[in-house]
Amino acid sequence: MDQMMMGAMSKDMMSMPGMQAMDMSVMQACMDACSACEQACTVCSTQMMSCAPACMNCADMCNTMMRAMMRMQGMNPATMMSMLDACMAMCQLTMDECMEHADHSEVCKMCAQACKACMDACMAMKDMMMAMS
Amino acid sequence: MDQMMMGAMSKDMMSMPGMQAMDMSVMQACMDACSACEQACTVCSTQMMSCAPACMNCADMCNTMMRAMMRMQGMNPATMMSMLDACMAMCQLTMDECMEHADHSEVCKMCAQACKACMDACMAMKDMMMAMS
Amino acid sequence: MDQMMMGAMSKDMMSMPGMQAMDMSVMQACMDACSACEQACTVCSTQMMSCAPACMNCADMCNTMMRAMMRMQGMNPATMMSMLDACMAMCQLTMDECMEHADHSEVCKMCAQACKACMDACMAMKDMMMAMS
Amino acid sequence: MDQMMMGAMSKDMMSMPGMQAMDMSVMQACMDACSACEQACTVCSTQMMSCAPACMNCADMCNTMMRAMMRMQGMNPATMMSMLDACMAMCQLTMDECMEHADHSEVCKMCAQACKACMDACMAMKDMMMAMS
Repeated sequence: MDQMMMGAMSKDMMSMPGMQAMDMSVMQACMDACSACEQACTVCSTQMMSCAPACMNCADMCNTMMRAMMRMQGMNPATMMSMLDACMAMCQLTMDECMEHADHSEVCKMCAQACKACMDACMAMKDMMMAMS
Repeated sequence: MDQMMMGAMSKDMMSMPGMQAMDMSVMQACMDACSACEQACTVCSTQMMSCAPACMNCADMCNTMMRAMMRMQGMNPATMMSMLDACMAMCQLTMDECMEHADHSEVCKMCAQACKACMDACMAMKDMMMAMS
Repeated sequence: MDQMMMGAMSKDMMSMPGMQAMDMSVMQACMDACSACEQACTVCSTQMMSCAPACMNCADMCNTMMRAMMRMQGMNPATMMSMLDACMAMCQLTMDECMEHADHSEVCKMCAQACKACMDACMAMKDMMMAMS
Repeated sequence: MDQMMMGAMSKDMMSMPGMQAMDMSVMQACMDACSACEQACTVCSTQMMSCAPACMNCADMCNTMMRAMMRMQGMNPATMMSMLDACMAMCQLTMDECMEHADHSEVCKMCAQACKACMDACMAMKDMMMAMS
């Protein structure tokens, strides 16, 4: 996400109850990883290999996850953590599917990496939220 | 969902491993409740009351949930249940927000009902999946 | 869309400038056709036939179109008509792709019908808007 | 979009009929501008100012536009141009709404800039496609 927009968003968020301790760089990394994973999965799904339905599911979940972080006014910590769990589960499943084709598809290999990065970023976000509570 | 399309989809799904015991009427009810909740939340969010950000989050989550049920080829039971948990949490939060305005907004009242119905349908879907495993 | 929600939404919309002449039944039919087309295309795309990428594009466009009609506060007639054009073009393309498989895929046949119905409903919506202006 | 993924996607696209003349850097710039605009509009819509419904519409249209460029296998030039027109119209409308608040909202100011940048990138994409045809 653009640095200036991130700054403006952070200011808003810091005024929300329970959000003062949020490390915005962790959240920014998570939003960026969700965006990258949505894009990789969207491209990967057009290959029409067996991973395609998982990739489509993962693209939608990552977009929903990214948007939810941009709309923390409409979230609470428990719901956010539940969505992070769902996003991590979906990324794990898609990574596993894509890894099966990683040897003969460069796109699947990159898609699996984007899923892994997204999963890691969601875990870091969840860890931070648990430390805050 | 259209009955004929549902029939065709069911036939495909019944050929997937572990899906033979799926009660398709429970899944159809869940997809329909997700669709109705997405629509109610989308309308409700335009009122620009304090529930709007939750409604936007809920609309996205419900759409993602509905699509995931239409793409079970790209899901597994554990991931599906994790997404159902996230969807129920998001619906609960949105229902609570909308209930605060239910006395003076007809739309919020109906949106809260759609969230409750979606939550119930997701729980029925999860119960069925747990019984299958 | 649920009748009661449609009623509440109509009341809001009738208070917007230039919307008094809107025939809400035409708009409701268009939103319902968009929703049905999104669902048909989402199911069809999991077949991983050559129509899949078009179906994915069409599902996204139809969802965006449906939501835009639910958020007319954030639209104007010219933009609405431009989006209807894009939605009709996307439905036409997807219908053509699916018709190529209609003989051997029941799902493609129904998907093509949903695309045709959505295209017709968008045209009726556009005709109404042109008559209003 | 990630450079390596873009490279792999370009290779696929270059093998599609009529796409050999596509300048992939123009398309990449357009996808990136759509992604940035979706993000800016999503954040802006949470402010619940009068631009919010337009911002929600614009976020959805930009996401649909971005994904369509990643799935050119499911597009043709005429449909792509129609969608670019719709996206430009939606960005223009949202920019105008946000500019009304640009003096007292930093987020609206940045959102208007993201809409302008997206509109320009869509125009460059459309120009390129017209030159190709």
